[in-house]
Amino acid sequence: MATITDRFKGLGVDNAPGQHSSKEDVEQQISDALIGDPLEGRTVDFSHGDVDAFPPPPGSFEHFEAGVEEGSTQAYTEYRGRKTLRDDLADSLGRFTGTTVDPNRELILTPGTQGALFLAISSLVATGDRVAIVDPDYFANRKLVEFFGASPVSVSLHFEDAAKVPELDLKTLEDVFASGVKTFLFSNPNNPTGVVYRLAQLEEVARLARQYDVTVIVDQLYSRQIFAGVEYHHLRAQPEMMTNTITIMGPSKTESLSGYRLGVAFGPEHLVARMEKVQAITTLRAGGYSQAVFRSWFQEEAGWLEQRISDHQAIRDELVGVLTRGDSSFTVRPTEGGSYIYPELPSLSISIDLFVHLLRRQAGVIVTPGSEFTVHPTRRVRLNFSQDRSAAINAVKRMVELVERYKV
Amino acid sequence: MATITDRFKGLGVDNAPGQHSSKEDVEQQISDALIGDPLEGRTVDFSHGDVDAFPPPPGSFEHFEAGVEEGSTQAYTEYRGRKTLRDDLADSLGRFTGTTVDPNRELILTPGTQGALFLAISSLVATGDRVAIVDPDYFANRKLVEFFGASPVSVSLHFEDAAKVPELDLKTLEDVFASGVKTFLFSNPNNPTGVVYRLAQLEEVARLARQYDVTVIVDQLYSRQIFAGVEYHHLRAQPEMMTNTITIMGPSKTESLSGYRLGVAFGPEHLVARMEKVQAITTLRAGGYSQAVFRSWFQEEAGWLEQRISDHQAIRDELVGVLTRGDSSFTVRPTEGGSYIYPELPSLSISIDLFVHLLRRQAGVIVTPGSEFTVHPTRRVRLNFSQDRSAAINAVKRMVELVERYKV
Repeated sequence: MATITDRFKGLGVDNAPGQHSSKEDVEQQISDALIGDPLEGRTVDFSHGDVDAFPPPPGSFEHFEAGVEEGSTQAYTEYRGRKTLRDDLADSLGRFTGTTVDPNRELILTPGTQGALFLAISSLVATGDRVAIVDPDYFANRKLVEFFGASPVSVSLHFEDAAKVPELDLKTLEDVFASGVKTFLFSNPNNPTGVVYRLAQLEEVARLARQYDVTVIVDQLYSRQIFAGVEYHHLRAQPEMMTNTITIMGPSKTESLSGYRLGVAFGPEHLVARMEKVQAITTLRAGGYSQAVFRSWFQEEAGWLEQRISDHQAIRDELVGVLTRGDSSFTVRPTEGGSYIYPELPSLSISIDLFVHLLRRQAGVIVTPGSEFTVHPTRRVRLNFSQDRSAAINAVKRMVELVERYKV
Repeated sequence: MATITDRFKGLGVDNAPGQHSSKEDVEQQISDALIGDPLEGRTVDFSHGDVDAFPPPPGSFEHFEAGVEEGSTQAYTEYRGRKTLRDDLADSLGRFTGTTVDPNRELILTPGTQGALFLAISSLVATGDRVAIVDPDYFANRKLVEFFGASPVSVSLHFEDAAKVPELDLKTLEDVFASGVKTFLFSNPNNPTGVVYRLAQLEEVARLARQYDVTVIVDQLYSRQIFAGVEYHHLRAQPEMMTNTITIMGPSKTESLSGYRLGVAFGPEHLVARMEKVQAITTLRAGGYSQAVFRSWFQEEAGWLEQRISDHQAIRDELVGVLTRGDSSFTVRPTEGGSYIYPELPSLSISIDLFVHLLRRQAGVIVTPGSEFTVHPTRRVRLNFSQDRSAAINAVKRMVELVERYKV
């Protein structure tokens, strides 16, 4: 039987985005490893996007304001979210995914996509279960599974060779499903690699899920930000997958609305019903007034989304250029969707974790260590490049320069 | 081992505030039981307060607006909440409770007090544990305990006889603690009865908690709204209780800020650290911009809180008057703190649950059935009287009139 100590063994927040308070023992290691002078430049926090560099769509705040003015009816919504908003969102999400979404039965509004992920896992996973997750993938996936006393089972995503098509290890996925695993959780585009799953792969995921009666939770947080030349496909739109797919999305990233804490999950009626029951004892509902901001989602003015995508693609191209130019010792796959790059650093004389601390101290560059995303040893770090363009370029140049000091 | 079906056995939302969509089978029962014409009048939803009748303190929205304008630094705070806000709040909460609160170690900002309750329970309760809760008390307490695979153990609060001092059954509490229960959860003022615990009782709760090494979670959501002649005491201020008390508060009720989803928990460092780890996988943080609204909490202009308390006390007095006048067959204890009254209806020819449905249909009066708060049979209903005064009085008069139709 799992004890309370068990629950917290795998839960850490020290390396998570926004959590950067250094511990004393790390301070000593940093001092011991210091080489050279600090690299001057504007501090860039690549652990999350910068909503000052990429502000929300015009009008989003005004929707919030109108919600406050409306008062009680917007403050106290049904736990699954206000009906009029669900009606509009179900329509948008149905069209976006090429399916239909029932606003009354298949959709719940949540406090951020993190809230949606938590509720989805809580609706499916019990003590002793095993859950298939991708390696690498969003760092909270593993923690969520373990929080419910279940065990994650890794399925590898092969992305390292940028010259090859990225590939989920479908042979292992089938073995895992055949062994009795009933839940599969993954992000598409993949966090942290920026990989977008190919249609043939999603078709096979769907076929296996149907064959082995597996419910799939797909985190599509970045599915509106797909770069030129990449095709995006929704798992929900695969044959018969509406009955065993929970899709998670939200306006926190591309739309820069993270400060409002908004997300959605849509999927089978009985699972949405469970999610609402858990929401009733965790946060009651997504913030009432914040829900009103959903009125701006999928309603951006013409060209807004296209501009946002091309702006990010331009930054991606510049950063990939800095990381791969000339005698660079980095390897990196260009992002296909979303705002992350996940470069591999060369061999260093110090640990990657210590380098990440030094990078922050000596160069004002905050990145997330790859160890948050994979159980395997890695020299990768994740950067969210939704940043001021020139600040981001200069920061990555400083990272390259600092790497030179510690290269073996 | 608990299955996923076990998890959802005890979780229901149908009678919860804001969840009033009638099921088809109930419709038939309502039709069969109808007596007389509808009672006309403005609909009043007593399941929660009306923020239109009691708006938030001036300036709260402007703090939100300033947070949005500040951008990234307010959108992406530490998971436990922004440091500058924690500094100010720790000071206010320390003075309010007659203790000190360490802003860095002992305080976490949460999405509503519901979020704080969930995190507190998650930091203490594991599968197979038993947890002491009061009967009656907030309906989510029991569900939270069961969600984590633990069992609630009831300790009675005797409140029924309004002529007597309310009394927690301390003999049972000691027996429960002696039997190995390590967590005790209760609200003060009590939800739904409006009882405020007497000092002698809190002293004994503290003594027993120390003796049996029990951690106490005390939900003080309504502790700023204490009516004339009632003394309020903070459990945290009892000797040596700062090391084994988690105190939960928030500005959703008296301050009418529920639409922003804000709460706080303060208590021992190691438990706050656990709560932050769970917050990292549930909602990441209390909404970033919403956190800025905490700047208005405990900073209301002179006289604002006193006016709010006396306004509510006046409504309480009127409603108690309507319920107990002349030949009334209701019994009710006048609220000592908070905005709830919990009257007992006379014996009716139909079930209380059906009466609650009829009351809504025939009289436009929405109340929460007492069965949400106790495991014992009850003819009580809960009303949140933070409402427009004359609308509330008229609605309670309609309730009295409808009761007359069904009295046996």
